[in-house]
Amino acid sequence: MNKLSAALTQLPTWVKSEVVAWRRQLHQYPELSFEEHRTAQFIRETLASFNGFEISSPTATSVVAKLKGAHPGRKIAFRADIDALPIKEETELPYASQHEGVMHACGHDGHTAILLAAAKALSESKHLLHGEIVFIFQHAEELPPGGAEQLVAANVLDGVELIIGLHLASQLPVGKIGIVYGEMAASPDNFTITVHGAGGHAGFPHTAIDPITTGAQIVTGLQHIVSRMTNPLEKLVVSITQFTAGASHNVIPDKATIKGTVRSFSSAVREQAPKQIQALIDGIASAHGAKAELHYVYGYHPVVNDDQVTALVESTAGELLGEEAIQHSPPGMSGEDFSAYQQIVPGAFFNVGAGNLQSGIHYPHHHSKFNIDEQALEIGTLLFIELGRKLLHKQEH
Amino acid sequence: MNKLSAALTQLPTWVKSEVVAWRRQLHQYPELSFEEHRTAQFIRETLASFNGFEISSPTATSVVAKLKGAHPGRKIAFRADIDALPIKEETELPYASQHEGVMHACGHDGHTAILLAAAKALSESKHLLHGEIVFIFQHAEELPPGGAEQLVAANVLDGVELIIGLHLASQLPVGKIGIVYGEMAASPDNFTITVHGAGGHAGFPHTAIDPITTGAQIVTGLQHIVSRMTNPLEKLVVSITQFTAGASHNVIPDKATIKGTVRSFSSAVREQAPKQIQALIDGIASAHGAKAELHYVYGYHPVVNDDQVTALVESTAGELLGEEAIQHSPPGMSGEDFSAYQQIVPGAFFNVGAGNLQSGIHYPHHHSKFNIDEQALEIGTLLFIELGRKLLHKQEH
Amino acid sequence: MNKLSAALTQLPTWVKSEVVAWRRQLHQYPELSFEEHRTAQFIRETLASFNGFEISSPTATSVVAKLKGAHPGRKIAFRADIDALPIKEETELPYASQHEGVMHACGHDGHTAILLAAAKALSESKHLLHGEIVFIFQHAEELPPGGAEQLVAANVLDGVELIIGLHLASQLPVGKIGIVYGEMAASPDNFTITVHGAGGHAGFPHTAIDPITTGAQIVTGLQHIVSRMTNPLEKLVVSITQFTAGASHNVIPDKATIKGTVRSFSSAVREQAPKQIQALIDGIASAHGAKAELHYVYGYHPVVNDDQVTALVESTAGELLGEEAIQHSPPGMSGEDFSAYQQIVPGAFFNVGAGNLQSGIHYPHHHSKFNIDEQALEIGTLLFIELGRKLLHKQEH
Amino acid sequence: MNKLSAALTQLPTWVKSEVVAWRRQLHQYPELSFEEHRTAQFIRETLASFNGFEISSPTATSVVAKLKGAHPGRKIAFRADIDALPIKEETELPYASQHEGVMHACGHDGHTAILLAAAKALSESKHLLHGEIVFIFQHAEELPPGGAEQLVAANVLDGVELIIGLHLASQLPVGKIGIVYGEMAASPDNFTITVHGAGGHAGFPHTAIDPITTGAQIVTGLQHIVSRMTNPLEKLVVSITQFTAGASHNVIPDKATIKGTVRSFSSAVREQAPKQIQALIDGIASAHGAKAELHYVYGYHPVVNDDQVTALVESTAGELLGEEAIQHSPPGMSGEDFSAYQQIVPGAFFNVGAGNLQSGIHYPHHHSKFNIDEQALEIGTLLFIELGRKLLHKQEH
Repeated sequence: MNKLSAALTQLPTWVKSEVVAWRRQLHQYPELSFEEHRTAQFIRETLASFNGFEISSPTATSVVAKLKGAHPGRKIAFRADIDALPIKEETELPYASQHEGVMHACGHDGHTAILLAAAKALSESKHLLHGEIVFIFQHAEELPPGGAEQLVAANVLDGVELIIGLHLASQLPVGKIGIVYGEMAASPDNFTITVHGAGGHAGFPHTAIDPITTGAQIVTGLQHIVSRMTNPLEKLVVSITQFTAGASHNVIPDKATIKGTVRSFSSAVREQAPKQIQALIDGIASAHGAKAELHYVYGYHPVVNDDQVTALVESTAGELLGEEAIQHSPPGMSGEDFSAYQQIVPGAFFNVGAGNLQSGIHYPHHHSKFNIDEQALEIGTLLFIELGRKLLHKQEH
Repeated sequence: MNKLSAALTQLPTWVKSEVVAWRRQLHQYPELSFEEHRTAQFIRETLASFNGFEISSPTATSVVAKLKGAHPGRKIAFRADIDALPIKEETELPYASQHEGVMHACGHDGHTAILLAAAKALSESKHLLHGEIVFIFQHAEELPPGGAEQLVAANVLDGVELIIGLHLASQLPVGKIGIVYGEMAASPDNFTITVHGAGGHAGFPHTAIDPITTGAQIVTGLQHIVSRMTNPLEKLVVSITQFTAGASHNVIPDKATIKGTVRSFSSAVREQAPKQIQALIDGIASAHGAKAELHYVYGYHPVVNDDQVTALVESTAGELLGEEAIQHSPPGMSGEDFSAYQQIVPGAFFNVGAGNLQSGIHYPHHHSKFNIDEQALEIGTLLFIELGRKLLHKQEH
Repeated sequence: MNKLSAALTQLPTWVKSEVVAWRRQLHQYPELSFEEHRTAQFIRETLASFNGFEISSPTATSVVAKLKGAHPGRKIAFRADIDALPIKEETELPYASQHEGVMHACGHDGHTAILLAAAKALSESKHLLHGEIVFIFQHAEELPPGGAEQLVAANVLDGVELIIGLHLASQLPVGKIGIVYGEMAASPDNFTITVHGAGGHAGFPHTAIDPITTGAQIVTGLQHIVSRMTNPLEKLVVSITQFTAGASHNVIPDKATIKGTVRSFSSAVREQAPKQIQALIDGIASAHGAKAELHYVYGYHPVVNDDQVTALVESTAGELLGEEAIQHSPPGMSGEDFSAYQQIVPGAFFNVGAGNLQSGIHYPHHHSKFNIDEQALEIGTLLFIELGRKLLHKQEH
Repeated sequence: MNKLSAALTQLPTWVKSEVVAWRRQLHQYPELSFEEHRTAQFIRETLASFNGFEISSPTATSVVAKLKGAHPGRKIAFRADIDALPIKEETELPYASQHEGVMHACGHDGHTAILLAAAKALSESKHLLHGEIVFIFQHAEELPPGGAEQLVAANVLDGVELIIGLHLASQLPVGKIGIVYGEMAASPDNFTITVHGAGGHAGFPHTAIDPITTGAQIVTGLQHIVSRMTNPLEKLVVSITQFTAGASHNVIPDKATIKGTVRSFSSAVREQAPKQIQALIDGIASAHGAKAELHYVYGYHPVVNDDQVTALVESTAGELLGEEAIQHSPPGMSGEDFSAYQQIVPGAFFNVGAGNLQSGIHYPHHHSKFNIDEQALEIGTLLFIELGRKLLHKQEH
C-alpha cells in the first residue's frame, strides 16, 4: 500500500477532507431517480464556489459544468451519476440517510463527490489546460429510460471526443482498479407477460382456462431461448423474476402475470429475444386455449468500452497505483446507462475498489448495509485529475 | 306449476309471510363464520316464541332446538347453516346487507328461515309426533374446519337415527328438487407449497437457486397426479390456484408460494394425494437444488348420501311436487360440512331450486348479485314438515 | 364349489370332453386377426356335424350359424371371437401353439369352443325353441377396425332383438361371473404425432429446430387434457406409449414420433380429445418454430351393457351358480368390438372366471404364459344354453 | 489469387502431382477408426521411399516418422489424422470409395497426403535442419477415446516442444486460412440416461410408473443447466439427441433411453455438468417414483490453441498467402482429439480452406457428398514446410 499512499500525496491537501465531507453530506440526503432536486442544487452551489465553470442544468435535476482551458484543444467529458435508491438504510453510520426509505446504496454519493473534487482540482490548473472538460453530473442512472439518454438528447456531448466514468465497487478491495476491455455491462431489457385465461371454481377446471398451468409452461418454455435457440458462443440471460396469479385456495384466477429480464450484449441476440418470447408465449398460450400478451421494454444499451480510452485509463492507473492494482474482469450482466454516451463517442467505464473486509465493508451494491471505504474517494479523484492532465496538458498521449 | 301451487296450500297460512320476513331480516345482518352472534340470538329469540322447544347453544354462535313429540319414538335431525360470506353485496334489494363487506351470498339466510318455519309448524302438531326432532342451526359452514365438526363433538347427534339438510340452489329453477344418491360433494382439501430457493441478481442465475423455474416445473409435475398416478375411474381434481413469487424485474426471489386444492371422493385417493404431492415437490425441488415444503390442510369429508334417506326425500318431494320436479344430478366437486354428520349417522342432503330466469335470479352462489326466488322458502319448509311427519307420525314409512 | 359341481351336472354328458377337445385343437393352430382361415374352416366343419344349422361366412374368416326353433318367436344372437395374437407362446402345454409367434393368449379359443358346444346343445332341444338363435363366430376382435363392424355391415343382426357375449377372464377365479351394468369397456383410440423440426449438429442447437425438446413439452402438455380440460367426473385416459427420435449422440434429428392412446366412455369426451390434442401440439410446436402433425385413429366404441339384458345374465348366473358367484366390477379402460353390435341392438357382455391360483393359472391376458382353467369352458357353455332356453323356451321372462 | 499462385511456385515441382495422387489413393480405400491397417501400411511404405526417416508404429494402425536434422536443436511435431467414417459415399468421383459404407468424408485423406508431402520436402532439406521433426500419422480421431491419447501414452511427444496440426475445411474457401486463438473446439462428452419406470397397460396408468412422461420432464429439466445453472459468460451446450421408448400404442413401456452430448470449454463447467445432470435426473425420476441412471462418457479435451504457436502459424500464413487470406474465427462446439497433445505441449490447430462454390465443393463435413478443392493440398503442404523451416532452420523466430 506504499505505492497507493505515495500516490495520494500527489493530491491537493484539501481533497481528503472535502471529498469525504461532500460525500457524507450527499449520503444524508439521498434522492430517487428524476427527483434529485436538492442534490442538483448542492452540486450547483458547490461548483459555483469554484473558479471558472460554466454551469447549466440540461434537465431539472442534472448539472453540467464546463471548464475551458487557457489554450485551445480537444474536448473531453467526465461523468458521475447522482441518484439514490428506494432502500431503507440499515447501516449505523452517523451520516446515515435522513430520507426514510431512500439510500445511497450504490455509491453515487461518492461518484458525485469525486467528480466535484476533480473539477475543483483541475480548475486550479486551468492555465495548463489545452481544450475543455465537460463535467456531467447525471441524474437517474438507476431508473430506465435513465438520465444519460436525456443528456445526450440535450447535446451535452457536442464536440466531445471521448468520455470517462467510474464506479465505486464494494466487492473490489480499495486500492484496486477494475478494467474491462470491450463488453463490460449487458443491456438490461425487461418484460411483462400477461397470460389471459378464464377463471372458475377450482373444482371444475374444465370450465376454466387455467392461466397458472399455462404460465408455468411458459416459464419452462422460455428456458429454451437460452438453452436451444441462441448460439452457445453468445452471452444471454433470460430470467423470470416474478410470477403472480390467484388470491385463494378455491378459485382458478383469470390471469397470471410473469415478469423478467433479458440481459445481452450482441444486438442480434438482443433483437431476437422479444421475437422468441412472443413466439413461445403465443404458441404455449394457444396450446391451452389462453392468450398471452408481451410488454417488452428495452433498457440501456450494453456498455462497450473503447480499447484506446480503456488503455489510457489502465496505463494511468498502473502508473499511479502500480501494475498490481489493475484487475482485469469479465463482463457483467448488470446494466449502466453510461452506454448512452458510448453510442455517441468512444468511452471507458472502470471500477474503483471501495471494499475493505477488515473494516466490514463488503456488503453488495443495493444492500441496506452497503458502504464504501472512503479512501476510494481520493483514489477516484486522483484518477480523474491525472486523466484530465494526460489528455489536456500539452504532453498528452 | 299447478301441482306446486296446490302443494303449497297445504302449508299453514302464516308460513309464507313469516319465512320471508325472517329470511329478509337475516339477509340484512349477515355475519361471518364463527361470528354469528346476532344471528344466533335472533334464532334463539324466534324459537323461544314458539311452543315446546328445548333450546341450547353448544357453541357461542350455534343453536340447537329439540322438539319432543307427545309419544316415544325415533330421534331425527334437521340441519340449517347460518353463516354468511366476506362478499360486498351488489344487489339493489331493499333488504340488502347492512354489514359492509358481508353478504348472505349462499342462501344460508333462507336455510335458517326455512328451518325456523318448519320447527314452528311441526311444534304445532307436536301431539302427533312419535319421537323427537333435533333442529340444528349450525354456524360456520363456509370456513374450515367448519361448525358441523364442533357440533358433532358437542354430541348434538346423540341418539339421532338420521339427519336431513337442504341447500337453496340458484342454478336450479324454483320448483325443482335436486336429488343425488351416494357421492354428492367432494372433500375439499387445501395445500400450500413453499419452494425455498436462493435469491440473487437476475443477471447471474448461476449464483441463485431459482424458485420460479422450480415452481413452474412443480405446477407442471403436479398434473401427473391426475393424469398418470390415479385410477381413471376415480374422481379427482388437483388445482393450483395461486402462484406468488418475486417483486421486481431484476431480482431472482428467495422463494415461491404455490397454493391449491385437492377435491376427491374416495378416501384411498384422498389419502394418497398429499403423499403424491410430497414426492413430486421433493423430487423436483431437489432436481434444482431447492427445497420444497408442503402444508396440507384436510377439509370436509365428502358428502355421501344414504340411499334410504335419500329415497325418502325423493319420494316425499315427488309426491308433493310431482315426479317432474325431481332432478337427478351428478356429484359436484365443491365441499359441504354436512358430511361431518354423515360420518356419524345416515343422512341426505338435497337441493331446493331457487332460480328464476324471468326474474333475473340466476347469479351463481358466492356472487355479489346472488339472490333466490323466495317461493323456494315455502317449498323447503313444506319438505321439512312433510319429512318430519312421514318419519315421526304413526304411519311412518 | 358344491353348487358349481351340481350345476355342471345339468350339462349334456358329451360337453366336457368335446368343449375341451375343440378348445385344445384351436389352441394348437392359432391365427392372426383377418387371417383365421383354418379356424373358420374348423368351425364350419364342426357346425356341419350338428343338426339343423344354416351356416354362412359373411367374410372370408367369419362364420355365422342360424338355428331356427320349431316355433315362431324372437331372434337373439350369441357371439364368440375367434382370432389369436402375435405372441410367442411360452407355456409348456402339450397342446401349445404350433404356429410360431402366434398364440391364443386371450382365450378366444375357449370362446369358440364354448359357443360351438352351446350351439350343439341348443340344437338338440330345437323342438322347444320359439324363435331363432344367431351364433356369431367373429374374426378379428384384436385388430381395429375389428371384425364386428364388418359383420354388422353384413347384416348379421337383421331382426335380432338382443345379443350376448362372454369373455374368459384369467384374473377372475373360475366359478365367478363378472357382471357390469352400463359402461364396461372404453373406446380405445390411437394416435401418432409427428413433430417436424430441423436437424443439425448437436453442438449448434440454434441452427436446428429441436424436435426432442419440443416433443418432450408436447408429452407434458398433453397431460393437461386429463388434468385440466376434462370434467373430473368423466373417465378418460391419454397415455403416451412411444417416443422415438434420433439415432446418435451428436446429431439433433429432424423429427420425433410420439404414439399413444385415448381411452374414454362418453362420446362428448371422445370427440373432444383429438381437437384438444391438435390444439396442444399445434401451439407447442409453433412455440418452438416446429410443426406437428396428428394422425388419429378411432378405435372401437365403448362397450355399454344394456340394463335388462345384463340383469338377465346376472339372474341366470345367480340361479345356476349361486349369488356368491356374481362379482360386480367397475368398467375397464381396455376395448372390445362387441360394442359394434351394441350400437345396433341391446346387448350384454360378461366375464367368466377362468383363473386358478392353485393351478398356477394367473397370468394376465396377452401374456406368453396365459392359460385358463378349462372348467370355465363348461361354465360358459352352461350359461349360453340356459340363456338360450330362458329367452326362447316358452316360459321366457 | 495471384499471391496464392505465386506462393505455390515455392513448392518442389513434384508436390502437386504426388500429394493429389496420394490423397486419391487413400480416398479410394478409406478405413474406420482403429481399423486403419491398409492406410498405415501405405503411409509406412511411402515414408520408407523417402530418405532418412525413423519409422515406427506405436499402435497397430498409427505411424510415427522422425526426421532428425543435421544439427542439434529443438524438437517439434506435426500431426495428421488418417481415419475415415461409416458413411456411404455419394460423390461420383472416379476415385470414390471402394469400401462400401466407409468414406473419407472429413478430409483425413488430404491431411495424410499433406503430411507425407511435407515430410518428403523437409527431408530434402534435412541438412539445414537444427533439431528434429516428429511426423505423427494418427489413427482414430473420429472415435472416442481417440487415437491421440494412445499416442501420447506411447510417449510420441517425448522431448517435443510444440505441436501443429491442420484441418481441411470445406466451408472455408480455398486460399483462406482459419486462425483461432485460445479456445477452438469444445470437449464433446456424451451421456446416456436410462429412465426405469414400470410398464403396464396404457389404459391403467396408475398401475405403471410412466418412463415417457418422466423422461419428457427430464428433457425439459436438463435445459436449466444451460439456462439457469451455468454462468452466462461460459460457453456450454447440453443437447438431447435421442429419445427411445415404447413399441406399441397400447403398452406403457418399462424404460426410456435418452442420449445426448455436453459441449464445453471450461473445465469447471465441464466437471459440473455430469453432477448437474445426475441431480436433475435423480430428482425428477424420484418425483415420479421412477429411477434414472446416468452413463457419462468424457470425450476429448477442448482444443485450446497456444497464443505463441498460433501467432507463428498466422504470421507464416500471412507472409505466404497475404494478410487477406487470414480468417479469424470463433470457437466451434465440435471436438478434436488434437487436444490430447495440447494437454502435454503447446500446440496450434488451424483450418485450411478447401471449399470452392464454383466447383460445387461446398458440402459440409460428414456429408456423403463431401469433397475438397485439391489446391488445398498444396497449400497445406506449403504451410507445414514453411513452419518446419521457420522453426528449425537457423533463423528461427
